[in-house]
Amino acid sequence: MGWMTDERGLEKTEANYVALTPLSHLRRAAQVFANRTAVVYGAHRVSYSEYYSRCTRLASALSKMNITPGDVVATLIPNLPAQAEAHFGVPASGAVLNTINTRLDVATVAYIFDHGEAKIVLVDTQFIDLAEAASAQMDGPAPVIIEVADTAHGWSKTNNHIEYEDLLANGDPKFDWIMPSDEWESISLNYTSGTTGLPKGVVSHHRGSYLMTMGTVISWQMQLYPIYLAIVPLFHCNGWNHTWMMPLLGGTVVCCRDIAAKPIYDAIADEGVTHFGGAPIVLNLIVNAEEADRRQFNHIVQVFTAGAPPAPATLSKIGELGFNITQVYGLTETYGHVTECVWRSSDWDSLEQNEKAAIKARQGVAFPMMEHITVFDSEMAQVPMDATSQGEIMVRGNSVMKGYLKNAEATAEAFVGGYFHSGDIAVQHPDGYIQISDRAKDIIISGGENISSVEVEGVLMGHPDVNLAAVVAKPDDKWGEVPCAFIELKPGTAPTEADLITFSRQTLAGFKTPKQVVFQELPKTSTGKIQKFQLRQIAKLI
Amino acid sequence: MGWMTDERGLEKTEANYVALTPLSHLRRAAQVFANRTAVVYGAHRVSYSEYYSRCTRLASALSKMNITPGDVVATLIPNLPAQAEAHFGVPASGAVLNTINTRLDVATVAYIFDHGEAKIVLVDTQFIDLAEAASAQMDGPAPVIIEVADTAHGWSKTNNHIEYEDLLANGDPKFDWIMPSDEWESISLNYTSGTTGLPKGVVSHHRGSYLMTMGTVISWQMQLYPIYLAIVPLFHCNGWNHTWMMPLLGGTVVCCRDIAAKPIYDAIADEGVTHFGGAPIVLNLIVNAEEADRRQFNHIVQVFTAGAPPAPATLSKIGELGFNITQVYGLTETYGHVTECVWRSSDWDSLEQNEKAAIKARQGVAFPMMEHITVFDSEMAQVPMDATSQGEIMVRGNSVMKGYLKNAEATAEAFVGGYFHSGDIAVQHPDGYIQISDRAKDIIISGGENISSVEVEGVLMGHPDVNLAAVVAKPDDKWGEVPCAFIELKPGTAPTEADLITFSRQTLAGFKTPKQVVFQELPKTSTGKIQKFQLRQIAKLI
Repeated sequence: MGWMTDERGLEKTEANYVALTPLSHLRRAAQVFANRTAVVYGAHRVSYSEYYSRCTRLASALSKMNITPGDVVATLIPNLPAQAEAHFGVPASGAVLNTINTRLDVATVAYIFDHGEAKIVLVDTQFIDLAEAASAQMDGPAPVIIEVADTAHGWSKTNNHIEYEDLLANGDPKFDWIMPSDEWESISLNYTSGTTGLPKGVVSHHRGSYLMTMGTVISWQMQLYPIYLAIVPLFHCNGWNHTWMMPLLGGTVVCCRDIAAKPIYDAIADEGVTHFGGAPIVLNLIVNAEEADRRQFNHIVQVFTAGAPPAPATLSKIGELGFNITQVYGLTETYGHVTECVWRSSDWDSLEQNEKAAIKARQGVAFPMMEHITVFDSEMAQVPMDATSQGEIMVRGNSVMKGYLKNAEATAEAFVGGYFHSGDIAVQHPDGYIQISDRAKDIIISGGENISSVEVEGVLMGHPDVNLAAVVAKPDDKWGEVPCAFIELKPGTAPTEADLITFSRQTLAGFKTPKQVVFQELPKTSTGKIQKFQLRQIAKLI
Repeated sequence: MGWMTDERGLEKTEANYVALTPLSHLRRAAQVFANRTAVVYGAHRVSYSEYYSRCTRLASALSKMNITPGDVVATLIPNLPAQAEAHFGVPASGAVLNTINTRLDVATVAYIFDHGEAKIVLVDTQFIDLAEAASAQMDGPAPVIIEVADTAHGWSKTNNHIEYEDLLANGDPKFDWIMPSDEWESISLNYTSGTTGLPKGVVSHHRGSYLMTMGTVISWQMQLYPIYLAIVPLFHCNGWNHTWMMPLLGGTVVCCRDIAAKPIYDAIADEGVTHFGGAPIVLNLIVNAEEADRRQFNHIVQVFTAGAPPAPATLSKIGELGFNITQVYGLTETYGHVTECVWRSSDWDSLEQNEKAAIKARQGVAFPMMEHITVFDSEMAQVPMDATSQGEIMVRGNSVMKGYLKNAEATAEAFVGGYFHSGDIAVQHPDGYIQISDRAKDIIISGGENISSVEVEGVLMGHPDVNLAAVVAKPDDKWGEVPCAFIELKPGTAPTEADLITFSRQTLAGFKTPKQVVFQELPKTSTGKIQKFQLRQIAKLI
């Protein structure tokens, strides 16, 4: 408590205290990087000066539609310029941004509209039907729909709603942004995907988003003028806050409507993409791309991957293609990534490729803006750092949510003991690096032994014919549970169940080896996470 | 004001709110970078784990000596390991760090001891006499002296005081750091050099230091594991906060007792120094070094320079030697640098060397953590950005001091209108870049025309024989004031007064050309700033 004996006259003033908010980054960039390209999408190429002006018009237009500070404005848009603009224009009107997952069903969107109380929703033409149907199912008043017509991509506007560009034309480019006066004010509302039960509304504050952007530049070792490909959906933890970060560096956001190998390679070769984030499934797309979809490039692309530990085999292969993969870890409740596998070059550069890959599969250590991230046992005591003792990942720091909207009970439960309880089960290596062994609910308990589904999946992913693997518990009369594997094969391959069981057994203990192997396409969330609860249902029935 | 209609349960908790402080960086580094080298000074080479342990012992030992939160602990130490450790160990005991300029006279040190009320002072053996004499002159109770004996550098301890290493030995390496609970708590107290009147005590807060470190990594485009040479004295705005920053990146601080060309070149060649900051006088040392003092190296050294605009000639020469110079600007009141000449590579890489140098002499634009830095006229209105209209640099943002200790009047005056008034006169280029034309008090007014002393100095520095130039006003019956030049020559040169006047006249208007040229060594502050008030005295007399 560094209060000196006489602190008279040393209070906060306008000169020395400004509420932290990522909005400041774009205001600065409009001056410092005025003529640099801020956002690219096909023929749409805007400078920071224009980007700032468009966001200002959006804020003004929302205000003219009677949006007042604290109101919620929602979006149902892919990673297009309007979605990036909403990240600045909506908070600049004082409102809270609620980006909604475009892959959700009508009932869930209706629930989110009702629960979040959105006054306005910006909707891409492709999802107008979804927004209209959800509005019709609501209990409360429906949000006003603004249509974002991606005409360049072949979507004609319906003419049933105000169109986004007309809205901007009606906005005042001189509108004075409504900045937070308290950095704890809310900036965004993101609903968890909710594999069970109703989705929860995660509320984030301006302070956390600001610090997330500062910490990410440092962690990702970013320098001026990166070219960022928007693969992580902006409706997923606001794209890990990357859109809010880019103005710090005068960087360019390259938008991407659909995620596939060809547009990714094209963006790297044609736009010079230097950075992107994506789930391991995106890495698989790149590694397994058809020859015709690949492009040559001469630089190293920096990739943050998260959502599930990538298989060592994938990591080895993608490195040879010119991508440097860094494993990060986080949740919607932590604004996205809050741990990273910081690379210890002097210790690890000389390791064999498979040893490197094994290390890169770790989730690592706390980001610079976080205070303490570790693994605790059920008594909230530090687990031994022996790479074996399991516990739950606990998170303390400034990039942790305010809490769940209208759910003080769930919030209090998540924050018991002064840490956010992640629900993820992990070990810590002797150097402190965290490695997830499983989601709490994904652990398989067979004959009293814990089996990490992640470990079994890693082995199966090493088989040359396997594209994706997911392992879940299957009820068993004798053992309680046994591992059951679901496999997505690469095109043109056809191994048998016995082939894969034999392959696994070469590495795994008998009790860890899958007892059954099912070949099928895996069900995934919009962010590429495999929906294991669906596989568990199947495993019970077969 | 993004407060939602229902924010119950969304208050700050221990899980999601941690007071910002650079102390967090070292706590994280002790985990993440435990085995990396943190501090080097000759044979002294400590890892982050050891550095953390030594700082913890210091905090513990201070607490045992009854230091309590809010107390002031001072230092009189060159840039040695103990000075770096004080930056963490002192605040970790809850105390406020008051680094005192080792070149000050006894009376001023006595004034600072009295005004700051230091309870303890850590003193390098070289300055024990100074500390003892100052203590004897004090009005109030004298601080307890802890002696830091730099035995490796030939200084034997006096045995009259507790020695620093003995103090550490008495500290508990398990001591629990006293972290700020409010980020507005004071972390440091730095007295301005006070060219006129009594020095003022600038009080800084934990929040500002934290944000300064985050913004500097981004501005300086730093990546993991930099090697930083401590040239800027840590008693000068805490070395621009660089010591607090290094743990963020697992970097190494290379200490430096005396600043000269040979040890700088040696540190670059032997330790692989990648970054340092220094006044233009340091750049001159490097450019004008004797052949025997130079060393070869194969990397680019990144240099922040500030304190005065470096002459274009110096900038051109040093670039060829392997140094990339970035001009930054700031004051003790702003924690050090808050503007930088961000390089617009696509616009400026193709320019001629002299055009590049002219741009590099600009102070530039706001650092990422600052909100608004610009040039206002006397009515606090934006000056035209025409590279001609002069005004005062105004600063708003989170890296601005709390205020002056026990001087609420001076604080209020400095913050009139919600901006910190820098006292520096500048123009703004059409792209918004700021360029200092002068300190308000350094402007020369001749026949009613303003003359920028900086402009005249820049021209004189282009003469091949000139090492340093300073231009001040000399009273003149006819013109009011005329420019008078003081010149430090390079060894072995002997131009005449007429030579330099003729040289200047080739570039400058007649009224800007120096009317008198004096050859002498220039008086400088400990940080390399030329003391123009002394030259003004001389100019009046000759």
